[in-house]
Amino acid sequence: MALLLEDALAILLRKIQLQGKNPIPLEECYQRVLAEDIVAEMDFPPFDRSPLDGYAVRMVDVQEASFTQPVVLKQVDDVPAGSVPSKKIEAGQATRIMTGAKIPEGANAVIRLEDIEVNQDRVSIFAPVDIANICRQGEEIRKGEIVLRQGTVLRDGALGMLAMLGQAKPLVYDQPKVAILATGTELIGVDQPLSPGKIRNSNNYMLMAKVREAGCQPILLGQVCDDLELIEQKLTGHKNIAMYITTGGASVGDYDLMEQLFVKLNIPMLFTRLAMKPGMPVMAGYWRDTLLVALSGNPASANVSFEALLRPVLRKMSGATVFERPISRATLKKAFTKPSLSRRFVWAHCEFEDGILYAEPMRFQGNGMLAGMLQVNALLDIPADSDCLQIGTEVEARLLVD
Amino acid sequence: MALLLEDALAILLRKIQLQGKNPIPLEECYQRVLAEDIVAEMDFPPFDRSPLDGYAVRMVDVQEASFTQPVVLKQVDDVPAGSVPSKKIEAGQATRIMTGAKIPEGANAVIRLEDIEVNQDRVSIFAPVDIANICRQGEEIRKGEIVLRQGTVLRDGALGMLAMLGQAKPLVYDQPKVAILATGTELIGVDQPLSPGKIRNSNNYMLMAKVREAGCQPILLGQVCDDLELIEQKLTGHKNIAMYITTGGASVGDYDLMEQLFVKLNIPMLFTRLAMKPGMPVMAGYWRDTLLVALSGNPASANVSFEALLRPVLRKMSGATVFERPISRATLKKAFTKPSLSRRFVWAHCEFEDGILYAEPMRFQGNGMLAGMLQVNALLDIPADSDCLQIGTEVEARLLVD
Repeated sequence: MALLLEDALAILLRKIQLQGKNPIPLEECYQRVLAEDIVAEMDFPPFDRSPLDGYAVRMVDVQEASFTQPVVLKQVDDVPAGSVPSKKIEAGQATRIMTGAKIPEGANAVIRLEDIEVNQDRVSIFAPVDIANICRQGEEIRKGEIVLRQGTVLRDGALGMLAMLGQAKPLVYDQPKVAILATGTELIGVDQPLSPGKIRNSNNYMLMAKVREAGCQPILLGQVCDDLELIEQKLTGHKNIAMYITTGGASVGDYDLMEQLFVKLNIPMLFTRLAMKPGMPVMAGYWRDTLLVALSGNPASANVSFEALLRPVLRKMSGATVFERPISRATLKKAFTKPSLSRRFVWAHCEFEDGILYAEPMRFQGNGMLAGMLQVNALLDIPADSDCLQIGTEVEARLLVD
Repeated sequence: MALLLEDALAILLRKIQLQGKNPIPLEECYQRVLAEDIVAEMDFPPFDRSPLDGYAVRMVDVQEASFTQPVVLKQVDDVPAGSVPSKKIEAGQATRIMTGAKIPEGANAVIRLEDIEVNQDRVSIFAPVDIANICRQGEEIRKGEIVLRQGTVLRDGALGMLAMLGQAKPLVYDQPKVAILATGTELIGVDQPLSPGKIRNSNNYMLMAKVREAGCQPILLGQVCDDLELIEQKLTGHKNIAMYITTGGASVGDYDLMEQLFVKLNIPMLFTRLAMKPGMPVMAGYWRDTLLVALSGNPASANVSFEALLRPVLRKMSGATVFERPISRATLKKAFTKPSLSRRFVWAHCEFEDGILYAEPMRFQGNGMLAGMLQVNALLDIPADSDCLQIGTEVEARLLVD
């Protein structure tokens, strides 16, 4: 009855509702997802411009220049950046020009300041010019071109580009809000003292980090004991939630209430478990059109279910066009001695050495453990029916980066 | 006179001032840097506990069990998660126990619910038990152990761990504030219309993204024309700035005022240029104990200087113990046809194929261009005096991930 991860993912990805779009100030756009194509309204550079500080000249004038017989031109104009040339260059003339400034008419090359001797308005040039040294109008962007596409995640280059194009308030997708509730009578808040049989609600904070890493907004609903009414109460009354995630009560025990919750809330169950470990227990369905997903209360299990199944869904909801992690092969640097009947995701730290990606499986791989996740930057995807994996074995690694 | 990047970096890293430390609520700690070692005050798990829903038994009682001759035990207790066992198990007895609950005294194994038949208080077991199925007290963490070290970046695993340990307000480093000012008479704000000779201030937004990606807090000072007084004014009066970054006016032209600014502000210059392209112009010094760095106004140049030189400095200032990017070898998927006299950083997109990391150099590599940075996830580090690089050449890649 357990579903392949890929099949479960396909089911959820099929019914994605994109978030709303809103224009927001550029200074708040870091890592947001662009919700429109951006078309250039003009060429960039908007004119032929100088890439350096120097003198604009006519190549033909300096073709006989040499160290012993420099060509001397007459400076007729001076164009600081931010200004425009006022004079056309004629034979024997040059214009002082700063980085980024517009090339004067008549000139077809720029010689850099360091290669020139200047004496009042006499400019001595000691060598011919064989390259123009000019940034051409439109060489970076052509008018009418789509410069940035809808779905682009806005980082340094894209933000600079939006600024260059004058997009002070680009249209971006709203960040999906993800409500996170931990269920379990054994749970207490992080600021409460432990008493016998109790443990603190760590899943809220662990999943908060995962949700933020996925570019979404976590809404922490805290913890609630194993009581159907209370669980429903906690989940009710929040606005504009894109996904509800619960932890706990998702496997087979009779204190496991999530199945009953789905019945009570009249949520048709899309699936109840995935064919993988950790992260097998996953109940998913639509509660009044919003995805409600019940994960295991075991931290490692909840984390892997989120990572493998829910993160791509949330990235796609966010409007991003790339929503899967990069996958690589990695070579085991330490053996992984647990044979796997099921497909198994193994916490690992990957590092390049001499161009080869090595993976070191973490010591702690238990379902109930958080320790295995520290220093992790990859999940190794070990196929079902695998034997012990020796040092040097090549495995598939999901890299926990964009 | 140009300094090796590595030498310049060493100069700056030598004199790092760590930020202040403050306790902040756990829900705000994502990606913050831990400013203290966290020591476990008790074992975790705090007691032997069950990893699943089932029955706690004595192994010896069930060693003769078989499908045809099941062993029948008497249920004497029921321990939901969050409760504690009230009875010791004697010969012939069993206790119903939920995931995470404490193992009752006397029991040394847990049999999962699915393998048991229950009829009122009679519990039938159909096979002997060969593994205990018990999570041992302290198997994840031992009392007194340092669980998380100062300098750890707080992500999912670490945040869950802090919650588990009851650290509701961990001590973290303040985020360095980085003031960013673009200089240049040609610059206008992002919301202003272009006029002849003018370009918009894109560097503020590009560097804002880089600063945020480095875990720091950008303070955008906008743009200012090439006027020493105005530049000083713009830089003055901000509190608790960890680094000032200016763009523009950092190379050799006589409109390049940053050198004069350093003199005016009485800042001894640590260095003025790095032996690399782009990103060569970098003037750095301490202005009343705060690092002031003048970068080129060319976007690609400013970005590479920041990435290669300033990001590691800011990460170390933030308290992070890992502050360098991962470096790998990558195989060129497209030729890079520009011979490099200088060491050159090349914008590239890297992708794994069959376990090999391939790098595709971007089409736009110009100093003055932003277009090359779109879709980039690596900088290729091409040594000085390199010829054209053919397809298949192995190069060094700095991966723009943590």
